[in-house]
Amino acid sequence: MNRESLITFIRERQNFLCVGLDSDISRIPKHLFAFPDPVLEFNKRIIDATKDHCVAYKPNIAFYESRGAAGWETLAETLDYIPDTHFTIADAKRGDIGNTSRQYAKTFFEFYDFDAITVAPYMGIDSVSPFLEYKDKWVILLALTSNMGSQDFQHFTDTSGMALYEQVMRKSQEWGTADNLMYVVGATQPEAFQHIRELAQDHFLLVPGVGAQGGTVQAVCDYGLNDDVGLLINSSRGIIFASDTEDYADEAGRAAEQLHCQMRDILLRRSRV
Amino acid sequence: MNRESLITFIRERQNFLCVGLDSDISRIPKHLFAFPDPVLEFNKRIIDATKDHCVAYKPNIAFYESRGAAGWETLAETLDYIPDTHFTIADAKRGDIGNTSRQYAKTFFEFYDFDAITVAPYMGIDSVSPFLEYKDKWVILLALTSNMGSQDFQHFTDTSGMALYEQVMRKSQEWGTADNLMYVVGATQPEAFQHIRELAQDHFLLVPGVGAQGGTVQAVCDYGLNDDVGLLINSSRGIIFASDTEDYADEAGRAAEQLHCQMRDILLRRSRV
Repeated sequence: MNRESLITFIRERQNFLCVGLDSDISRIPKHLFAFPDPVLEFNKRIIDATKDHCVAYKPNIAFYESRGAAGWETLAETLDYIPDTHFTIADAKRGDIGNTSRQYAKTFFEFYDFDAITVAPYMGIDSVSPFLEYKDKWVILLALTSNMGSQDFQHFTDTSGMALYEQVMRKSQEWGTADNLMYVVGATQPEAFQHIRELAQDHFLLVPGVGAQGGTVQAVCDYGLNDDVGLLINSSRGIIFASDTEDYADEAGRAAEQLHCQMRDILLRRSRV
Repeated sequence: MNRESLITFIRERQNFLCVGLDSDISRIPKHLFAFPDPVLEFNKRIIDATKDHCVAYKPNIAFYESRGAAGWETLAETLDYIPDTHFTIADAKRGDIGNTSRQYAKTFFEFYDFDAITVAPYMGIDSVSPFLEYKDKWVILLALTSNMGSQDFQHFTDTSGMALYEQVMRKSQEWGTADNLMYVVGATQPEAFQHIRELAQDHFLLVPGVGAQGGTVQAVCDYGLNDDVGLLINSSRGIIFASDTEDYADEAGRAAEQLHCQMRDILLRRSRV
């Protein structure tokens, strides 16, 4: 999906919610084990219930991979089930030397037809570039993440006062553009958003950390929105595990709708200013 | 496999070679396509031909993952085929927030019974720790990699003159010990080995970049060896793609034997000093 289509979908729906399919088999409701593929069944019902309230889905690859070949089958069928009107992100955090990153790109952009993949920056240009060679596909590069460990290295600062996450954002803009490169910026770090928006004015930001991890939509929007909206705010556990009983899909739909309403309100209020 | 067993195997065989199973289906000899699983057949013959000349195998997960569920089946059967006397490394470069890294650890240490996994440090402590909770399993953390892109961020230097890769090595020693934590250090950066050995005197170093990428065994050993040997030197393409004809396994065996001889000579000369 290209940038223009993504922005159109966001504008039409007044929505920039991404639903994270971190579909942990140990947490899905028990009645689903009557189906041949319980996780696929779980995902399908989540997608049915949330698709009118989001613009993107982000399967977290770890939760599929941990079930071996069967998990990868679930992933393929889940991806097939997501409507073409929704942006798809493989949350895989890959990155390796050039010939290996090319294989990872092949996996997620050819074997599976994802629109985007999350990539770890540590190994530099040749670990990222192979993903950028695909037309209408996106790299979502880790910049400032939502977890506790983001304090360990991402704020490591050079003699000019520049932090590593800033250097990642600065350097990577030599490799990709706002048409094929986004950044992961955690909702748990709202104080950094104004500065990050200065570093990447036109780029989309994928924002995890709303809900279970403690961030809020309003705090992210206060500084994160740009003229094209420029945000995909993700919620995973807060939506898909809103309930652990047979009504889980209804509850997931309600949780997504609630975030959708917040987003629509924010965009409406903004358009009136 | 614990540290003691690994060191015993290395000492008994006078060998610290790791064979990288970067088994790219587009590069394996054509006659193997007569078999139901050509990549598995390729790997089995490589393992048969090289097992007397190495102590470890390192499947590069990208080359399996890119074939979807079928590739993961090949990986499982390849792992089953590797003798218990050999250390096994999932070259996966994983790393995510805590609950996700736990899933990745489950994948590679439980679903697949690897001894070790390569991990990317960017997301810090909670992305690494879940892998360290397994007894007799290892994290091999990216420190200074062998590729061109290693120049982009790994040498990013703070006000005290410390580079990011040094900070990764320093900080991570608060999380793991020489019994469950190794570092990836590229053979293409021999000038850094003396310093790296000072930063991690007892830790094993996994050293890619010998062969196709240009590093040499002697240059790595000059500064990298410690009292327990402390090195696993990897060669992938230089061994498994030594020939692309029907005799590929024999040629792979010879390439591994050649590296084994160099290693044995270096250890023998050293023991005489």
